[in-house]
Amino acid sequence: MRATIITIGDEILIGQIVDTNSVSIARKLNAIGIAIGEKLSIGDSREQIVDTLRRTLQSSDVIIITGGLGPTKDDITKHTLAEFFGSKLVYNPAEGEHVRQLLERRGIQFTELNRNQAMLPECCTVLHNAHGTAPGMLFNHEGKVIVSLPGVPFEMEHLMDDEVIPRLKAQFTLNDIVHRTIITRGIPESILAERIEEWEDALPDYLHLAYLPAPNIVRLRLSAYNVDKSEAEHEIDRQIEKLRKIIGDNIVGMEGATVESLVHDILIERGLKLAVAESCTGGTISAKFTAMAGASQYFMAGVTSYSNEAKRDILGVDFTNIECFGAVSEVVALEMAEGVRRVAGADYAIATTGIAGPGGGTRQKPVGTVWIAIATPNGSYAVMRNSGTDRSQIISRASAYAIEMLYEELKRL
Amino acid sequence: MRATIITIGDEILIGQIVDTNSVSIARKLNAIGIAIGEKLSIGDSREQIVDTLRRTLQSSDVIIITGGLGPTKDDITKHTLAEFFGSKLVYNPAEGEHVRQLLERRGIQFTELNRNQAMLPECCTVLHNAHGTAPGMLFNHEGKVIVSLPGVPFEMEHLMDDEVIPRLKAQFTLNDIVHRTIITRGIPESILAERIEEWEDALPDYLHLAYLPAPNIVRLRLSAYNVDKSEAEHEIDRQIEKLRKIIGDNIVGMEGATVESLVHDILIERGLKLAVAESCTGGTISAKFTAMAGASQYFMAGVTSYSNEAKRDILGVDFTNIECFGAVSEVVALEMAEGVRRVAGADYAIATTGIAGPGGGTRQKPVGTVWIAIATPNGSYAVMRNSGTDRSQIISRASAYAIEMLYEELKRL
Repeated sequence: MRATIITIGDEILIGQIVDTNSVSIARKLNAIGIAIGEKLSIGDSREQIVDTLRRTLQSSDVIIITGGLGPTKDDITKHTLAEFFGSKLVYNPAEGEHVRQLLERRGIQFTELNRNQAMLPECCTVLHNAHGTAPGMLFNHEGKVIVSLPGVPFEMEHLMDDEVIPRLKAQFTLNDIVHRTIITRGIPESILAERIEEWEDALPDYLHLAYLPAPNIVRLRLSAYNVDKSEAEHEIDRQIEKLRKIIGDNIVGMEGATVESLVHDILIERGLKLAVAESCTGGTISAKFTAMAGASQYFMAGVTSYSNEAKRDILGVDFTNIECFGAVSEVVALEMAEGVRRVAGADYAIATTGIAGPGGGTRQKPVGTVWIAIATPNGSYAVMRNSGTDRSQIISRASAYAIEMLYEELKRL
Repeated sequence: MRATIITIGDEILIGQIVDTNSVSIARKLNAIGIAIGEKLSIGDSREQIVDTLRRTLQSSDVIIITGGLGPTKDDITKHTLAEFFGSKLVYNPAEGEHVRQLLERRGIQFTELNRNQAMLPECCTVLHNAHGTAPGMLFNHEGKVIVSLPGVPFEMEHLMDDEVIPRLKAQFTLNDIVHRTIITRGIPESILAERIEEWEDALPDYLHLAYLPAPNIVRLRLSAYNVDKSEAEHEIDRQIEKLRKIIGDNIVGMEGATVESLVHDILIERGLKLAVAESCTGGTISAKFTAMAGASQYFMAGVTSYSNEAKRDILGVDFTNIECFGAVSEVVALEMAEGVRRVAGADYAIATTGIAGPGGGTRQKPVGTVWIAIATPNGSYAVMRNSGTDRSQIISRASAYAIEMLYEELKRL
């Protein structure tokens, strides 16, 4: 069972938006056993939509299209699909009434343009969009299913979950797809490949291994298509056990395990409390922890002490030290970590202070210089890192490094 | 001049990663006048790579391919391209030496797999990858250019900027592409379309208008392809002036203008100071401001007062109020905003306190309930918003709403 995902919109082709819709659709289809053969993005052009449909219908059982369903002149998907399937547009009173009520609740007047949104191809199954004004459409064509959904992510998600997935499951007999990703740290890709070569070569034919390298991390994904889920899961478990015997020390965890989630788990398990003092990272570290459900069990407080006065008044940093050594210094980082640990009543604390740029760098402390401190019940320490020259990169790298340092500290418990 | 972007990798097709490479490549090509006709993602499959190349070569002058150049067995792009262009792989000593030195500096041993990375198709122009071990390749084929780049974003970016773009500019005569995006607030898409219909219909033929709706915001993009840049820019300026006369009050700014950037500009211009106290938003608001260069001119401090004790000890919230009204209440939001304004020595302050879930909701205060307060030199006020049920959505909506409230306040100055 093979699907194609087509996203329509010039905004994708010019790089104005990042296409996350196709990511979400791919995951949802994989979860019910439908593999994606191809993903395409094309413009708001009648010819291109028709050519693409004609070509991809030859190699796909399912085609999911998003975008181009709005009320304005640049949106042509609906008319093109009606034409492609030789169907005329007819007014759907139920959808028209829904759009009218939806707009009324928002205090918006119902216009001719909105009425047109309820004009739908006669030959399609209308997919009711409870959260928006553009309904989805499902076409059955020579045993294949073609679905058109609005491009607004929230509306697309609901239509996929509530309307599309149940219909695909009902219409097709689907086998399972299983993916499992193992996260390794500390071995470069080429060395890792050599170390696990024998294991890789001995994998059963239906298990496919992929290497996904990133700075300091290589993810190994095992995929099995068109299988029985529980059997494949069982085999993957067995293979991971074998892999642990070869590179066990380098396996951090399974997909989804970020370093902050590992810290989160340890803190909850041990009943320990955390506080964070941030200067250059500006709240990013706090936001990473508090994004996780359950963070309130250990996250006491974060202080983004951007000004020198805030460092002194909120965290108790000695102003003389700021004047003598500068705000970006070992002693200030340590005082920030110790200060927030004390003020927030935490067991552990992280602090960052650095020069995120583009201004503020000097020869001795260039842009990218960041001091990171960890305060623990048994004392504190700090390290200096240079994290590049781009502001957003400096912020994200320094945040990641600070959380890694805390993880290393907590692992010793 | 038309280009196709092809990203290769099963990780894209299963939705394991978000493809940002094609976004960046599309922008870089647009900037030199090359329009993207189609973007595709395909799997690590020889047949699919060959079929896609054969088809897209018919409609493209330039093809940019990323991914599949690593040292491991799942990476097949290089071999497939060599075969497609009928060329054999030969060892490139300069690239081999570069890889060896790069690994040596990182303390990694040079293996046979790494040596293979310097085996390159004889017929291609090798694009030196100063930041990684996989070189890029450029093929000239019947007047068309086909480029293969590694999928690691940082390496791809450098190769595009340093090697690919200069070569494309040298090889082709390129006209300009101009995009300009106007951000509007406060008019729904369908009403907006009616209000500007006459203006839209009177646009010159070569200016294409697109509507990009998002919650509370509609972006209007004007695009011109294959034009003289300065002439098109001038015409767009003229059209925007005409548009201002129709919907001037609803135009927030041009693309790139986020609400936080508008607040940022006002605070700097007026020499005003800001502080933020966050509970449920957990540092997100602080991170949004401090992500902008120059934030240190006005951003004094942010306090993520997650625990009740932190609200009391750092911000001076009255514990009796937390006990009587709960941490998620109007009075606590107000005390947080006033507290952080005082502690940080700021002119304005934002505070958020809410239930981000999934736990912690009650019948009276369900998950998604957020109190947002603004403290000003002339007093403070708070509003309650319900921001949905999903934790990450609650955090992002409450953050956006709080910043909007501050913007509305500052606009009155």
